[in-house]
Amino acid sequence: MKLLVVNQRAFPVMASPLGLRFIARKACLRCYSSSALKWEGGVSMVQGASRGIGLEFVKQLLEKNEKGHVVATCRNPDVASGLLHLKNRFAERLSILPLDLTIESTIEASAKSIRERFGSLNLLINASGILSIPDVLQPVEKSSLLLAYEVNAVGPIMEIKHMWPLLKIGGGSGTERDVAVVANLSARVGSIGDNHLGGWHSYRSSKTALNQLTKTVSVEFARRKDPIICILLHPGTVDTDLSRPFQRNVPEGKLFTKEFSVQKLLGIINNAKKHDNGKFFAWDGQEIPW
Amino acid sequence: MKLLVVNQRAFPVMASPLGLRFIARKACLRCYSSSALKWEGGVSMVQGASRGIGLEFVKQLLEKNEKGHVVATCRNPDVASGLLHLKNRFAERLSILPLDLTIESTIEASAKSIRERFGSLNLLINASGILSIPDVLQPVEKSSLLLAYEVNAVGPIMEIKHMWPLLKIGGGSGTERDVAVVANLSARVGSIGDNHLGGWHSYRSSKTALNQLTKTVSVEFARRKDPIICILLHPGTVDTDLSRPFQRNVPEGKLFTKEFSVQKLLGIINNAKKHDNGKFFAWDGQEIPW
Repeated sequence: MKLLVVNQRAFPVMASPLGLRFIARKACLRCYSSSALKWEGGVSMVQGASRGIGLEFVKQLLEKNEKGHVVATCRNPDVASGLLHLKNRFAERLSILPLDLTIESTIEASAKSIRERFGSLNLLINASGILSIPDVLQPVEKSSLLLAYEVNAVGPIMEIKHMWPLLKIGGGSGTERDVAVVANLSARVGSIGDNHLGGWHSYRSSKTALNQLTKTVSVEFARRKDPIICILLHPGTVDTDLSRPFQRNVPEGKLFTKEFSVQKLLGIINNAKKHDNGKFFAWDGQEIPW
Repeated sequence: MKLLVVNQRAFPVMASPLGLRFIARKACLRCYSSSALKWEGGVSMVQGASRGIGLEFVKQLLEKNEKGHVVATCRNPDVASGLLHLKNRFAERLSILPLDLTIESTIEASAKSIRERFGSLNLLINASGILSIPDVLQPVEKSSLLLAYEVNAVGPIMEIKHMWPLLKIGGGSGTERDVAVVANLSARVGSIGDNHLGGWHSYRSSKTALNQLTKTVSVEFARRKDPIICILLHPGTVDTDLSRPFQRNVPEGKLFTKEFSVQKLLGIINNAKKHDNGKFFAWDGQEIPW
């Protein structure tokens, strides 16, 4: 294995044992229809779309664009009333697929479904996340740390792993962007430099790991010259089920509506350029320290 | 639950559902012998001590100090030839205990053993870590990401959780330091800001998460005014089994011996002050960005 030495440190180059090489190999085996490369308005996928910020992303992607398709995924589409309501309004512009981030075969199945129908993907938003689950996520317990990591950090990276060939084909085609965008919902509490209060161990460390994994993938996309960028987004404190147990004492005006936060985040996504690859933005466009 | 609002964000204060409150409660139920507070030369624990950097820490702690006790832990003491050799040389100054970071009951058992024999602890070095295991740690596989996180990030935090009452009693007593020190072996590749090459997903993200968890605990220790600090250490590229598969092409002089690296790291540990709490140091004392 070839090693690159930078600042006295040895790094594996391209052929990293943990790199994306194996994905590239997989991708070569597939045949894609070039006719599917320019789906008018683009194909967007929102993972974790049954409620909260994810559902709002689906809604605004459909409402604010006249064209383009949205693939919304969640664990149980049959009971996702918000998505079913949007399906009634937007019919053929919305697909709803079952996907559980903790079950990799469901990610593969959704990638297969998107590949067969659209042949490419232009935007992937990983919106799911867990913060507190009464009687499940406990203070500084191993099971809690592992569960939060599995859902909040590993899941989105598995998602990218399987959607990468579709994003590579999609790039910015059919959209107003130059590149395909992967937007991972992170959180300011995932910042180590900004951690002055402690607490929330499982959530914090899972989001910090998500930041590192996203940065790692972004570096690899850039090195491969793939037409894809990855960004991390902090939505602010948003009035959703996730933040509900922690909303008391939040001053008026500091708790954002889903509509406001997602509008801001979509603005960042739609204006994202190649040089934004691997960056961590708050809802207001400010970069957050690692 | 009381919330503190900083920069428009709401944080749980002290009574965090994921905080250390429960540990404090546990600690109150225990009675400690005050006679054990000043073990001459201090009591140091090295976790992951059977080989590599961990074993070298044990060796130098024993050789470079005339007094003080070292508790060395590893998964299989019976086959830890390096430790058994040191036991022959240092007899009563060294205890060897079985501990598997992935089995919390073994951490609890070692805490109980230290409590009963010494009643306190002054230094905890978490030295174990996994980088690559052929046919086990694979590129961007869920099982690899979870295993590296469990061993490299969750393990040391579980260790701190159970040793905290002993470290709190120990503080700097019997040593030349003002405070008890927790030193977690991290790695520069865990830095997000310094990640320009990608690769090593499982290892990188686990070390980044360890950095965040260590920072989180350090904030909580400071808020409680406990006589304990936590620091993170990057040992450089050291000639050990861990780095062996990646040593080719490392220029002469850039691959450190265990002796050199541990000597540098012990210098940092021995000179650590309260204001170093939560910091991430390279072997040469330079701070590493998050």
